[in-house]
Amino acid sequence: MFTSENDSLMARYRFACSLAESGGKLAYEFYQQRESLQTDHKGSDLQDVVSRADREVESFVKSRIAQAFPDDGFLGEESGSTDCDKRVLWVVDPIDGTSAFLNGLHTWCLSLAIVADGEPVIGVVYDPNHHELFHACKGQGAWLNDLRIEPHAAATVVGGVMGVGTSHRVSSGDFLPFLDELLQHGGMFVRNGSGALMSAWAAAGRLIGYYEPHMNPWDGLPGIVLMREAGGATNNYLADGGLDRGNPVLLASKTLYSQLQQWVKQPLL
Amino acid sequence: MFTSENDSLMARYRFACSLAESGGKLAYEFYQQRESLQTDHKGSDLQDVVSRADREVESFVKSRIAQAFPDDGFLGEESGSTDCDKRVLWVVDPIDGTSAFLNGLHTWCLSLAIVADGEPVIGVVYDPNHHELFHACKGQGAWLNDLRIEPHAAATVVGGVMGVGTSHRVSSGDFLPFLDELLQHGGMFVRNGSGALMSAWAAAGRLIGYYEPHMNPWDGLPGIVLMREAGGATNNYLADGGLDRGNPVLLASKTLYSQLQQWVKQPLL
Repeated sequence: MFTSENDSLMARYRFACSLAESGGKLAYEFYQQRESLQTDHKGSDLQDVVSRADREVESFVKSRIAQAFPDDGFLGEESGSTDCDKRVLWVVDPIDGTSAFLNGLHTWCLSLAIVADGEPVIGVVYDPNHHELFHACKGQGAWLNDLRIEPHAAATVVGGVMGVGTSHRVSSGDFLPFLDELLQHGGMFVRNGSGALMSAWAAAGRLIGYYEPHMNPWDGLPGIVLMREAGGATNNYLADGGLDRGNPVLLASKTLYSQLQQWVKQPLL
Repeated sequence: MFTSENDSLMARYRFACSLAESGGKLAYEFYQQRESLQTDHKGSDLQDVVSRADREVESFVKSRIAQAFPDDGFLGEESGSTDCDKRVLWVVDPIDGTSAFLNGLHTWCLSLAIVADGEPVIGVVYDPNHHELFHACKGQGAWLNDLRIEPHAAATVVGGVMGVGTSHRVSSGDFLPFLDELLQHGGMFVRNGSGALMSAWAAAGRLIGYYEPHMNPWDGLPGIVLMREAGGATNNYLADGGLDRGNPVLLASKTLYSQLQQWVKQPLL
């Protein structure tokens, strides 16, 4: 679909990496303000800092994209979108892991994906607390900063730690049976509050995989691209209206995917 | 029990803070080696780095304590103890969150407590990834670096995030009912792989509390002291052989403790 260099996927990939880093650093400035507010015991202002950070980082990212690629569409967690029918769509969560940000857990990120002609082709996750940029573009492999990444080599779930997430968009019964199977099979889990970051960790082999019964596209899409380009397996996230309504996310190495899939109770496309 | 300044609780408190920081920084040097090993794709050596880090940090901490307080006892995760009957006992986990360390999750810590005449009186948790020293001594309040900390102000579990942990020392049935109650009451959870660190976060009001169906004393005790000194509530962890066999841990603000306690299925002293 891309015809000239200036209009190409690679130009967007380079731009997306740089933008995620700048946007994440802007969010980090708010995070530092948050720490000072906490120090002053002005806890009631914390929520306000987080809300401002969310809005201002999204607005920064959105305006930069509009400037550089004026014909592309934009879908953001904060501002939503009216142009999901554009051929190239940027999908952005300025701060994934808002409650981790709010509470000072150091595990939140800027999460960004590009969908072109209905296919997720770029996924970028930037963690400003640890200066880690996870990035992938269709056909280019998956990377953490300048290092190629790949899924965990574990042969069974006992060999590593699984990332999981849930939300109140689903019931505990949609989530806990998976966790029960995992624990009963000798596995273990983490949930750090940011699904996009845990998905990136899975693509980098820090976790054996990631499962969440429902993710919105701005949090779910980057991990899908990262894990595919890292050489792992994912569900078909965009099937059946995923871009509009979200979908479950399961991603893991090709070795572990089918075992994990059996423990997911809801339909997984 | 302490008669002179040199032999006092405060002398041990100052020493414990400084020691946790030095020991944690030593562990962090191994953590950086781990990252280089990963870069070289020598994954099979990673477990070895972690095991060496665990042993060497514990040996460093143990020898410093023996030098400074030769009459005190020592109980470590790696080396165990033969002197749990000493009036003053140092209880140490050189790296709590070994699998987080192994997998590069940035959420592990050095965890240290002192039990004097059967009572937990000092708790120190040092997180070298984020330069955060959580420390408390009986009667002195609880601190994060130089700032006084206190539990989360949430009136219900909906107002914040709960820390949880589990292990294969218990069954999933000992753990999941608590999580189910929490989720069904509109709460949310994190598990970052280090119980000692999550307990410290709870004392600092980043989490509304921490629950784990079974913790060993080297991971459980520091959070008990931290939360009590922060002004929150905890179970009586050392009751009924806790120092020998471990016990469940529940800690939270005084407001939330009794509600959370109802969701714990096993006996909680």
